[in-house]
Amino acid sequence: MLTEDGCLTRRTRLWNTVPDDVEWLLIADPRHVHYLSSFWVNPLSFSTCERGLLLLERDGPATLLADNFTRRSAVGAPFVDNEVIENWYDHRHSVVNRDHALFAAVNSISERISGRLGATECEWLPAPAAGQITSQQSVAGDVNLGPTLRELRRRKESDEIALLQECMRAGDTGHARAREVVAAGVTEFDIYREVQSAAMKAAGRPALVYGDFRAVNARTPKAGGLPTDYRLRDGDLMILDFSVVIDGYRSDFTNTVCVGTPTDDQQQLYDTCCAAMRRGEKSLKPGAKARDVYAATSSALEDAGFGSLGHHAGHGIGLGHPEPPILVPESDDDLREGDVVTLEPGIYVEGIGGMRFEHNYLITESGFQRLSNHVLSLK
Amino acid sequence: MLTEDGCLTRRTRLWNTVPDDVEWLLIADPRHVHYLSSFWVNPLSFSTCERGLLLLERDGPATLLADNFTRRSAVGAPFVDNEVIENWYDHRHSVVNRDHALFAAVNSISERISGRLGATECEWLPAPAAGQITSQQSVAGDVNLGPTLRELRRRKESDEIALLQECMRAGDTGHARAREVVAAGVTEFDIYREVQSAAMKAAGRPALVYGDFRAVNARTPKAGGLPTDYRLRDGDLMILDFSVVIDGYRSDFTNTVCVGTPTDDQQQLYDTCCAAMRRGEKSLKPGAKARDVYAATSSALEDAGFGSLGHHAGHGIGLGHPEPPILVPESDDDLREGDVVTLEPGIYVEGIGGMRFEHNYLITESGFQRLSNHVLSLK
Repeated sequence: MLTEDGCLTRRTRLWNTVPDDVEWLLIADPRHVHYLSSFWVNPLSFSTCERGLLLLERDGPATLLADNFTRRSAVGAPFVDNEVIENWYDHRHSVVNRDHALFAAVNSISERISGRLGATECEWLPAPAAGQITSQQSVAGDVNLGPTLRELRRRKESDEIALLQECMRAGDTGHARAREVVAAGVTEFDIYREVQSAAMKAAGRPALVYGDFRAVNARTPKAGGLPTDYRLRDGDLMILDFSVVIDGYRSDFTNTVCVGTPTDDQQQLYDTCCAAMRRGEKSLKPGAKARDVYAATSSALEDAGFGSLGHHAGHGIGLGHPEPPILVPESDDDLREGDVVTLEPGIYVEGIGGMRFEHNYLITESGFQRLSNHVLSLK
Repeated sequence: MLTEDGCLTRRTRLWNTVPDDVEWLLIADPRHVHYLSSFWVNPLSFSTCERGLLLLERDGPATLLADNFTRRSAVGAPFVDNEVIENWYDHRHSVVNRDHALFAAVNSISERISGRLGATECEWLPAPAAGQITSQQSVAGDVNLGPTLRELRRRKESDEIALLQECMRAGDTGHARAREVVAAGVTEFDIYREVQSAAMKAAGRPALVYGDFRAVNARTPKAGGLPTDYRLRDGDLMILDFSVVIDGYRSDFTNTVCVGTPTDDQQQLYDTCCAAMRRGEKSLKPGAKARDVYAATSSALEDAGFGSLGHHAGHGIGLGHPEPPILVPESDDDLREGDVVTLEPGIYVEGIGGMRFEHNYLITESGFQRLSNHVLSLK
């Protein structure tokens, strides 16, 4: 769970970006409502796809707008001062379009903000809600809340880091379980279920697990996506590149496990990936150019004769995946304190096989702190 | 997966509701984009929360609009004629706000529909997309696509029923597993993980499992929500009221398992719930009033001296949960052929305990077909 302190800090940071004459903000991206209030509809609920909106007022209250069933599906209690919850379903009457309950909530706050300059997060504001607001209020056209919030999200606050560390610990446990169960005769999907159950047990509560759970080999050295019913054979390499998602925040790290004994060539790929990760790590610090982190990581592959790294060297993670900074050859990003990033060198060679390894890092004042602690090992 | 035939049938049904002079429809609710094209962002992917839009043209092509990473996270290939996929991330450059890629896609179809009357599903259309459309196009204000689509959704087509039956089979297996593992000393959360893994194994692919996984007893006869780390004790009743979600469609059925031997009073609650379900079933047929189904179900509780049923007797399920028809005392709904509904009598009595049992049914021309086949039993 995000904390009240964290939400209040993030709101202050948001207000600091907004011109003084703007008095209210209507937040609409569900991730940003969560980010600023801890209101998050549990994806494991009957309210998946449903939305709340968050009205923030300068030096005033924070107000959550939602229908009663969406409110009920929240993960924990949101940190708001008021709630405008419109009845959609009461166990006694028929229901109508659930969205219209949300618009009724918007309507009921319209008078409250009447005549005061404000701004909406338009990218996620449904057209009727925008219509209700803009027909009666003054909206500052030059305040771009969506891009601003995406920018603010880069610097993770301590509650976000704690939540990410929960994901990391669950991911560590999932990887440990994978190393126990990967064997000839087991399916990719069997491994997924084992990893998911172990990661959730470590998390202590329901969580989502997604990512690449695919076996590759010398003939087909690269594959990605959710697991299939393919049954592992001796010589396969099982790539486990997965995220554990808790309250919308996520880990994202990788190990590759060999079915049977790795060949010398496979061992060389492994050694090269590890060298690439070490070189990448050396470049992780505030102010570093993302393209230089890519170049440093890729250089180990190039020096070993494998050409340049064929995908990103890593990227930011948090409420999104991927999110800035993006560690790619032509990135314009730089690293900042508070970024949480991946480093994920991979090599895929026909005739040998494919593999990828990945850790997650918090960028700190002095460099970085590694957040993932799984064992990188082909065996 | 939904089928192409199913999507085309649903589109025809939608066009049949629209005035002849309306030439294009822009669909925005992700559930409705899915319903009409089979484009569904896998919730187990890095693109959760992201969206596509669907442009339908009368006697013309269906066009999917999305960013390239959202497109990549689709469950299967959508049944559309064109795709306008805007590049958001290319593994070489930094990224900007992902939503803006979607708006670029909308912009690129704007000329195509220029000067022709159309309609948008405004409840889910983001304000900037609506602005792009309405500034240049004629939009029919009296076409309410959101409510229309929710109405159309009641009559499930054969591909939807097949998908729901996949969910039901997985749910059956989950319940069977629960009956094996419910025991003193096991936590609610342990049971959840066992049920989830078994249900997914039966589904043959990753799926979501959510619902009530809670132990109750004579002191606290009612509880709901996701599992906690509560450790079951002798005499507890474990209520398992859960949904298995595959491609956005879901089952929703319940069993209650007693830890140890049920008391005579508990057995009476069980017998009364089963009688209530039988009475409810007898009333399931096209044309039946939803309030009469409630009354029939509740009557068994009333006759046994437990008062009237304290929650809905059931509701529709499909892409939503709950969705019409709603089986409650003051419902205005009636049952129709093609509805998929639940019946879920429950009794919760201090000093005895609480329990609920539930099956899922397809309303057919002659009455109903039960879709769930789990064992209802306290033991």
